[in-house]
Amino acid sequence: MGEKRTIIKDLSAALADEDVYLRARVQTYRGVGAKKGFLILRQREHTVQAVVSVDADQISKQMIKYIASIPSESIVLVHAKVSKVLEPVKSCTVQDVELQITQIFCENKSDGRLPFTLEDATRPLPVGEDEEGEETEQATDQAAPKVLLVTRLKNRVIDLRTITNQAIFKIQAGVSKLFREYLDGHGFTEIHSPKIIPAASEGGANVFKVSYFNRDAFLAQSPQFYKQMCICADFERVYEIGPVFRAENSFTHRHMTEFVGLDFEMAFQEHYHEVVDMFEGMFLHIFEGLSTRYATELEIIKRQFPFEDFKAKKLRLHYKDAIALLRSSGVEIGDYDDMSTDQEKLLGRLVKAKYDTDFYIIDKFPLAVRPFYTMPDPQQPGYSNSYDVFMRGEEIMSGAQRVHDVNLLLERVKEHKVEVKTIQGYVDAFKYGVPPHAGGGIGLERVCMLYCALGNIRRTSLFPRDPKRVEP
Amino acid sequence: MGEKRTIIKDLSAALADEDVYLRARVQTYRGVGAKKGFLILRQREHTVQAVVSVDADQISKQMIKYIASIPSESIVLVHAKVSKVLEPVKSCTVQDVELQITQIFCENKSDGRLPFTLEDATRPLPVGEDEEGEETEQATDQAAPKVLLVTRLKNRVIDLRTITNQAIFKIQAGVSKLFREYLDGHGFTEIHSPKIIPAASEGGANVFKVSYFNRDAFLAQSPQFYKQMCICADFERVYEIGPVFRAENSFTHRHMTEFVGLDFEMAFQEHYHEVVDMFEGMFLHIFEGLSTRYATELEIIKRQFPFEDFKAKKLRLHYKDAIALLRSSGVEIGDYDDMSTDQEKLLGRLVKAKYDTDFYIIDKFPLAVRPFYTMPDPQQPGYSNSYDVFMRGEEIMSGAQRVHDVNLLLERVKEHKVEVKTIQGYVDAFKYGVPPHAGGGIGLERVCMLYCALGNIRRTSLFPRDPKRVEP
Repeated sequence: MGEKRTIIKDLSAALADEDVYLRARVQTYRGVGAKKGFLILRQREHTVQAVVSVDADQISKQMIKYIASIPSESIVLVHAKVSKVLEPVKSCTVQDVELQITQIFCENKSDGRLPFTLEDATRPLPVGEDEEGEETEQATDQAAPKVLLVTRLKNRVIDLRTITNQAIFKIQAGVSKLFREYLDGHGFTEIHSPKIIPAASEGGANVFKVSYFNRDAFLAQSPQFYKQMCICADFERVYEIGPVFRAENSFTHRHMTEFVGLDFEMAFQEHYHEVVDMFEGMFLHIFEGLSTRYATELEIIKRQFPFEDFKAKKLRLHYKDAIALLRSSGVEIGDYDDMSTDQEKLLGRLVKAKYDTDFYIIDKFPLAVRPFYTMPDPQQPGYSNSYDVFMRGEEIMSGAQRVHDVNLLLERVKEHKVEVKTIQGYVDAFKYGVPPHAGGGIGLERVCMLYCALGNIRRTSLFPRDPKRVEP
Repeated sequence: MGEKRTIIKDLSAALADEDVYLRARVQTYRGVGAKKGFLILRQREHTVQAVVSVDADQISKQMIKYIASIPSESIVLVHAKVSKVLEPVKSCTVQDVELQITQIFCENKSDGRLPFTLEDATRPLPVGEDEEGEETEQATDQAAPKVLLVTRLKNRVIDLRTITNQAIFKIQAGVSKLFREYLDGHGFTEIHSPKIIPAASEGGANVFKVSYFNRDAFLAQSPQFYKQMCICADFERVYEIGPVFRAENSFTHRHMTEFVGLDFEMAFQEHYHEVVDMFEGMFLHIFEGLSTRYATELEIIKRQFPFEDFKAKKLRLHYKDAIALLRSSGVEIGDYDDMSTDQEKLLGRLVKAKYDTDFYIIDKFPLAVRPFYTMPDPQQPGYSNSYDVFMRGEEIMSGAQRVHDVNLLLERVKEHKVEVKTIQGYVDAFKYGVPPHAGGGIGLERVCMLYCALGNIRRTSLFPRDPKRVEP
């Protein structure tokens, strides 16, 4: 009882010749004859090679046989001596030492029939291949079996054990942490708005219906109205991290029916660009924090999914400039047209080539393509005080100055043919004095996906939800 | 443009005779003849008295008339000189100075017909009165109108503006912040589990049904299964802050249909008391942090809702000791009976009298009163490795060591007559090696309510939900 346990992450040449005790998973066992074997032991995103060989004292041939019989993914308790290696152990994250096992005990045994091995699930894909085919493809690939995304998601608890996924979800937690850190430091208050709401407020489509005692209720598509109501209630600067629900029948690489929203809303003094400055600073804080504090995790992810480092600097383009850039590349698009996803991606490449940044803000979207609560630009008719934020050519945040004058709000509601009674609580909140304010909402999984160029949002959600996927 | 703005919180004698510029709400205006008036200006949980009087230079009689006409709750921009006062201004939070207004501009006008005044909404109740009667009672109270809870919640955006509510929701944010701070410092990873789940997993009752494309889905009653699945997936220590949904038809002071869960789950090395030690330390960190870092907010809350300071120390009782304490006070209760809410409250008083603490843990609940996934106590038949945490005699956290052996789990599932197929994804997660683990879940609003003895959980939820309340 109470014996000190070592973690794999801490193993290094500095501990050479010391005895350690640890709990880990057996990722693989490879025997070399009947007298010797190599194990890869794993804890979260760290792996180490362990050697077991017959010696006079502690390890018998029987013992080797027993170790060989431990199913992969079982949890073992190991006594071992740390030992320097001559060549770096490239297959493990700990490369300068290995463990010489003196005792091993299986604490919790895995079923031997794993749906896939962790080795296969962690192997980088050959260039040009992807994992998003049909499940049946798997059997046809002989040489180095790839694990399709669909198989991974079905067996997500095992898939999440790869060192890559352990690192991805540390990055995910890191994004939220850095988001809060920045906003806490700038006087924001964390809020929790209700997810069960009385009406399908923002148009009615794409909303999940809930049976709520003897009536219908709905799941919030965003905390938009409630965070604005908190501004109406004097909170001044608020943020929320919480689930967002979208009943969209989409199967793209970047849509889910449930995702984590990082939302914020802020009263400003004179101009909504105070808010743009704030979130621009926040994004740069997140990117900087990821590249410095999560460098180890990023390296681990790159082993399996190589990606170019994310480049970020301050860059704001007027919507007109974005349109001009697209036209210069031959795209036909009207001044007030919304950009398609493909046009956005092209724009991302053009901006990267011209400004050398993967992060930028497009300000002043055409009023017509934005929701009713968006503040029109008082100086430039047809435009609005609204903006989108992009990472590698994909939108990750949409936001705007909001209409805070109750009469203008009612006018805009009418123009957009929204039924006032479906948003009565929201409209009423603007009757009793409201400061000018702006805000935005970020998709947590998108930020992670795009920062690491992971290609599919399901890779950055623990248990992703789409129209056909609701388990596990 | 760009003129420096002062915040009311920073006003003090140190700024005497300085000119300041600020935005605030007009809480009240009281005229003294035609030439002078007093305003109370408010920003969040801070108020200051402002004086306006006719002088040769800047303030005309017309101006006084204009100021008198500004509806309460309007947002104004004020130029003023800071001025020391002879007597403390007891009605405001800033007591040693007032403002001599030189200019005032109404930036956003409130409707003059407020459902209640902020003065009434902030007044402490006379001893023995409460605010939870029927709405019609309001009209009968002449002297000092009280604002009933039902009226407050209907007009929540205005109600939330009271300095008391501003302080309450800073406390709420503080609890989460301290929770994360402690767990981040102990190697936990923040997770986000899905709220849309495939089956009414924990028994089927009390679950909201969602129309999910062409099938039914449900809202998660807790992240219990998913946080355990993260342990199965090697996350080792996880926490989540997110909404929890309960379709219970309850109208008590401590039930809501949607609340914020602070959940954590942790693999341990040798004994589940490692986990109990962890969350005991976490609770003490929260209580300590509130009393030191949020002292101002607590004082503001006490002005309206006086309460005894919360006392906390380390105290763990075996379930048997709790039963014995109740019996010593004349309660008839069997060894393995569950405690009723009233018995819990009585126990709270007995513990307070005997040990002088409002916080304590009861360990080793009878196995029969706990869910199927609770680990039986291997030494004491009839008991289990499970615990509840109490604040002021009310349960705020329930938790346990979980069954991590798949065969024992299937046995317990069978014994509890749970249909395996409704929890197949959960059960499957235990097939491939799982470390021993334990955890628990806390209701954020309950912690805030009980720490400040606020008497009704709706006071600590921004927009509370109960079976009859789904708006605003």
